[in-house]
Amino acid sequence: MNYYSKHITNLIDELKRLPGIGGKSAQRLAFHIINMPEEHVEHLADTLVTARKNIRYCKICCTLTDEEVCPICSSDRRDHSTIMVVEQTKDLAAYEKTGQYYGVYHVLQGSLVPSLGKGPDDIRFRELEERVQKGDIKEVILATNSSLDGEATAMYITKKLKPYGLKLSRIASGVPIGGELEYIDEVTLSRALDGRIEL
Amino acid sequence: MNYYSKHITNLIDELKRLPGIGGKSAQRLAFHIINMPEEHVEHLADTLVTARKNIRYCKICCTLTDEEVCPICSSDRRDHSTIMVVEQTKDLAAYEKTGQYYGVYHVLQGSLVPSLGKGPDDIRFRELEERVQKGDIKEVILATNSSLDGEATAMYITKKLKPYGLKLSRIASGVPIGGELEYIDEVTLSRALDGRIEL
Repeated sequence: MNYYSKHITNLIDELKRLPGIGGKSAQRLAFHIINMPEEHVEHLADTLVTARKNIRYCKICCTLTDEEVCPICSSDRRDHSTIMVVEQTKDLAAYEKTGQYYGVYHVLQGSLVPSLGKGPDDIRFRELEERVQKGDIKEVILATNSSLDGEATAMYITKKLKPYGLKLSRIASGVPIGGELEYIDEVTLSRALDGRIEL
Repeated sequence: MNYYSKHITNLIDELKRLPGIGGKSAQRLAFHIINMPEEHVEHLADTLVTARKNIRYCKICCTLTDEEVCPICSSDRRDHSTIMVVEQTKDLAAYEKTGQYYGVYHVLQGSLVPSLGKGPDDIRFRELEERVQKGDIKEVILATNSSLDGEATAMYITKKLKPYGLKLSRIASGVPIGGELEYIDEVTLSRALDGRIEL
């Protein structure tokens, strides 16, 4: 049933298809957009299309970027012999925010999802293996998520890259800083125990 | 600091300006859009611009609509002598969903906000008064929100329309259906008491 006119209904329907936008949010956004100055709406629309058209995968690390080679891969201030493997571009951004990592990245654009039959050909693993085969890589740090799928992906990559004889590491699992033990799940707690560091 | 390329950053920034979209949501939406098929993004962008360009105020009731006169105002199946006054087009939609109202509407496109100096000239009140002056109106039902501003608006309209000698009414305030008394605020409870109906 349509209580709104055709254009409002179309707009609400389109917005509802976006992730995390329910009926009420779509309605609120639609009325906001209708009340925006026309040139702002055109600018927003243009930004969507321009972003979609111009963003591509970095030909080295497969992150989403505007150039053929992303700024990190083309920087001479980064250590190109250390590769951190992450699932998504936003994970790369999360590590960049720490300001503590000076190597380069490899973005898998996903993870293995054994439960859905998503295998190595569905992620950017082949590109990673090619980078390792070319040599000059000293360490590969596996920073996939600590989820079931992320762990499966880390295990798979470890198995495949082991023969190349480089250093392979996995980021630590444990209790997050500021986390109160009573609210932390058992798996994390036992991981934190296993990974304890001698003082 | 930009951890993303220019186009991704632009997209995230634009999305963050929308109401209810924070940094994390904007990032999630941006990556969703980048991964959508190009023609879907173009369609979304086009829907935004088309909606903004083609939606106008109904020349009778001031609701947002595609036509000069909205479907409700131009329908001969509605009772044009009863006007329900609401603040926003979405309030009209809420009453239409009940399927229990057969009159027409008047959408103020806002309410008086005495605290911000928003007065009668900032809402579509003049248009309502003109409709009443033209005659043939038997009843005006005030369905502005039960907020401070909504109440102030209802009081103002009552004062202004009283001289025309038509029936003026206000929708009932009280405990919402399914509401548990212990969780309902005192003002609502005393309103519900004042408005009690003899059985």
